[in-house]
Amino acid sequence: MELKRFTKNILITKNNSAMNIENIFPFFDKVIPQEEKEKFLKQRAKVIWFTGLSGSGKTTLALRLEKELFIRGFHSKLLDGDNIRSGINKNLGFSAEARVENIRRIAEISKLFVKCGIVTINGFVSPTHEIRNMAKEIIGAENFIEIFVNTPIEVCEKRDEKGLYKKAREGKILDFTGVNAPFEHPVSPDLEISTEGKTVEESINKVLEIVLPRIKY
Amino acid sequence: MELKRFTKNILITKNNSAMNIENIFPFFDKVIPQEEKEKFLKQRAKVIWFTGLSGSGKTTLALRLEKELFIRGFHSKLLDGDNIRSGINKNLGFSAEARVENIRRIAEISKLFVKCGIVTINGFVSPTHEIRNMAKEIIGAENFIEIFVNTPIEVCEKRDEKGLYKKAREGKILDFTGVNAPFEHPVSPDLEISTEGKTVEESINKVLEIVLPRIKY
Repeated sequence: MELKRFTKNILITKNNSAMNIENIFPFFDKVIPQEEKEKFLKQRAKVIWFTGLSGSGKTTLALRLEKELFIRGFHSKLLDGDNIRSGINKNLGFSAEARVENIRRIAEISKLFVKCGIVTINGFVSPTHEIRNMAKEIIGAENFIEIFVNTPIEVCEKRDEKGLYKKAREGKILDFTGVNAPFEHPVSPDLEISTEGKTVEESINKVLEIVLPRIKY
Repeated sequence: MELKRFTKNILITKNNSAMNIENIFPFFDKVIPQEEKEKFLKQRAKVIWFTGLSGSGKTTLALRLEKELFIRGFHSKLLDGDNIRSGINKNLGFSAEARVENIRRIAEISKLFVKCGIVTINGFVSPTHEIRNMAKEIIGAENFIEIFVNTPIEVCEKRDEKGLYKKAREGKILDFTGVNAPFEHPVSPDLEISTEGKTVEESINKVLEIVLPRIKY
């Protein structure tokens, strides 16, 4: 029997398991590709990117979407301020550069999940064209579903669950989107919704109409 | 019918879908927890952390482990230099601080995958106690499986597929682990193996012996 060497280019001899592995995986010396992971999970991996003002309903919709997908048998990952700013991005502040880096890292992480076949749900203000275009470019336009939660600022400010608008109006938060920093409306999002006067069910149904056909295997 | 408000604390009325969702998910206003994701995928999420010199066989083992798990029905994510240094960490150099930040981000990303129920396979030199302890702390000791690929440096240097040892010996790479920067041997890894004179099959079988019981649901 021919000797095998311990390298990426394994010398293959007949009737051994290395041969079997190579038959099953033509890509045995590469990472298993996205298509194989998607087949395994029976879903198409996409990034559902919610953008909108603080208080617009992004997190509520993202959390609800995660549950709606789960009960339909889809495996997803929700990224939001809670698990990002307290973890990988806890060394980032809120300067213009830090905000770009924040979204860059989120987009790169989303890409890792997509390559793993996972539907990724993101809820971040992501207020500028520049920042959203960067995310879309990193993730790949074909994998990027942009949902603009366009709830009027008066409604967002009235909700103000975290008291951030109040602080921004008092000048205690600088560069707060909608108050003293601009929110640039997305030009052609896959979906635009306002959550004003709507139930979560009404809003999530609109989201599902867009998302389900794109992730169905 | 009582009105529902669009907040995280949805007012629930009888016989509507919000009620159903809450019954299924007591955690409907939080991210679906790791245990539910693991049940869904029928696996326990762990991080398999390969540490060792360049050329020791980490990547070969990591790539092979991914395939072995896949054919057994486990869903995993492999993180290595290829998808990390060219993506999320492409803005990091190789200073001492940058190396710590490199591993910190990798550990945080691993944690996101583990929380999503995914087995995560990492192959990084991670040469110091400090760096590996940090990773273990971020990921959680209960989720961390440390495999020390302790192949003699002479063997690693002979392989030298990327020509890095040669460059380091010529002084063209500074702080190259094993040549002009130390590798601190792990004190109590879950497994220690040398790939010297072994086939990939022989080595991976030892890895599987340790890994499979820990990820089995």
